[in-house]
Amino acid sequence: MPETLTVACCQTVPDVEHPATSIAQTRAALRAAVELGAEIVVLPELCHSGYVFASAEEARAAAVPADGELLAGWAAEAARGDAVVIGGFCELGDDGRVFNSAAVVDRDGVIAVYRKLHLWNDEASWFVPGEAPAPVVDTRHGRIGIGVCYDIEFPELTRGLALAGAELIALPTNWPREAGTPEPTPHLLARAIAFFSHVYVAVCDRGGSERGVGFQGASVIAGPRGTALAVAAPGAAVETVFAACDLDATRDKRTGPRNDAVADRRPEHYLSNLSNPESVIGTDGLN
Amino acid sequence: MPETLTVACCQTVPDVEHPATSIAQTRAALRAAVELGAEIVVLPELCHSGYVFASAEEARAAAVPADGELLAGWAAEAARGDAVVIGGFCELGDDGRVFNSAAVVDRDGVIAVYRKLHLWNDEASWFVPGEAPAPVVDTRHGRIGIGVCYDIEFPELTRGLALAGAELIALPTNWPREAGTPEPTPHLLARAIAFFSHVYVAVCDRGGSERGVGFQGASVIAGPRGTALAVAAPGAAVETVFAACDLDATRDKRTGPRNDAVADRRPEHYLSNLSNPESVIGTDGLN
Repeated sequence: MPETLTVACCQTVPDVEHPATSIAQTRAALRAAVELGAEIVVLPELCHSGYVFASAEEARAAAVPADGELLAGWAAEAARGDAVVIGGFCELGDDGRVFNSAAVVDRDGVIAVYRKLHLWNDEASWFVPGEAPAPVVDTRHGRIGIGVCYDIEFPELTRGLALAGAELIALPTNWPREAGTPEPTPHLLARAIAFFSHVYVAVCDRGGSERGVGFQGASVIAGPRGTALAVAAPGAAVETVFAACDLDATRDKRTGPRNDAVADRRPEHYLSNLSNPESVIGTDGLN
Repeated sequence: MPETLTVACCQTVPDVEHPATSIAQTRAALRAAVELGAEIVVLPELCHSGYVFASAEEARAAAVPADGELLAGWAAEAARGDAVVIGGFCELGDDGRVFNSAAVVDRDGVIAVYRKLHLWNDEASWFVPGEAPAPVVDTRHGRIGIGVCYDIEFPELTRGLALAGAELIALPTNWPREAGTPEPTPHLLARAIAFFSHVYVAVCDRGGSERGVGFQGASVIAGPRGTALAVAAPGAAVETVFAACDLDATRDKRTGPRNDAVADRRPEHYLSNLSNPESVIGTDGLN
């Protein structure tokens, strides 16, 4: 039998006007998930601060340092079950800059902090974009690649995480409600990313609404075959979803008796890798 | 009103033991699609030869040159409506090598030939892999990126086509039946690829079975928002699906008032672009 890990996404409802409530709710959900056996727990983007800031000043006022009480609290909860926690937070950098970040935390404290590379919409008014790659973090429960929300729309980022050894890609999100899509976009993208690289993908979204912006509550844990192993119920606000994930199995990239999702790559022939591609063909003749 | 083009996928049932029937069926489906107004028509992989070869010799016997009667026949059908045709064929190269190829053809003849880069399963016993990038072809009906079947599983390839200007990515396929997936894999991947790069993706699959291998009939045309605009009916063997596609609109990559699917990329920070990524973080300290 394969050894599986229990991965959880704690979908919560932060409130930008009541950060103390958001912090307490997140911590309660994290504690419950760990008590229920979760070994890897993903929390939403900006889960302590809320999202819809009215100004850069408000975001700055909500920001906390990576070595402060917030992440120490997550570490204390992780220690109750030897869990690894990935969660989004509004980070006050040493230099006073404010970032939309994700932390990876275990019982010993903060292992890694990632600062979101791709800022969405008004985030550019509140945050400084990251200047370091989204990392793969070697944790006590496997190698976890990190991204935040809009990062999921850049297939190069998630492919890079997988090629660098990620077995699970964890993405805290705050995904606004969508109209006219038959499936929440985070589900579509998580499933495809998982399929492409034979990894697990865990998206922890938020529910509720703030200042007129409704959020989707589209948390999902997708498996290497491109299936959704767990999804938050449509319309759910607060909900924790769990999935049993065999992270070790993701190291085997074979897709058939003679095929392998990584070894079969032909990077020397991808237009995205070529500085001067010659393969745009006009109508004036045969290639 | 936007000007739309009609894109069609002619899903057929080739038969490796009766190539003359396969050729006639394909041509009849192509003719009908053009008569019904299709301006871009995609045909399946290896649509004249069938797929499940018993030997390399059988594949070689079925192979035809790019300047032979087969593609001239497609060009004649294209000329009836000024269409562009993308179809898979078993190619006999000038040097006698055999390739799993796709041709782009219009009324003037063959515009481009692409030789499949990623060979699936026993194809490696029958074909030589391509040694040139999958191309973007500037046709009379827009810029069309080309891939063949298993190529769709490599997100770098399709992303590269989009970044090189493809408005539509056309993929002839022969997709074996799957079990246990809630959605045909070609649908999942086509929708995600279309969403990531704000392009259209047309997968023309085949139905039926050969020598014990059943094919899925999973043809799909996906639009830039990640939705399936047209799909072959589940279980359908021969079916042509049509979708109205506004290819010009794909040049606008804006995804929101302050965001753009291409301009927002941070390629200098993608691990897949770094020869010596430093972002694999151990458990021994903070990044």
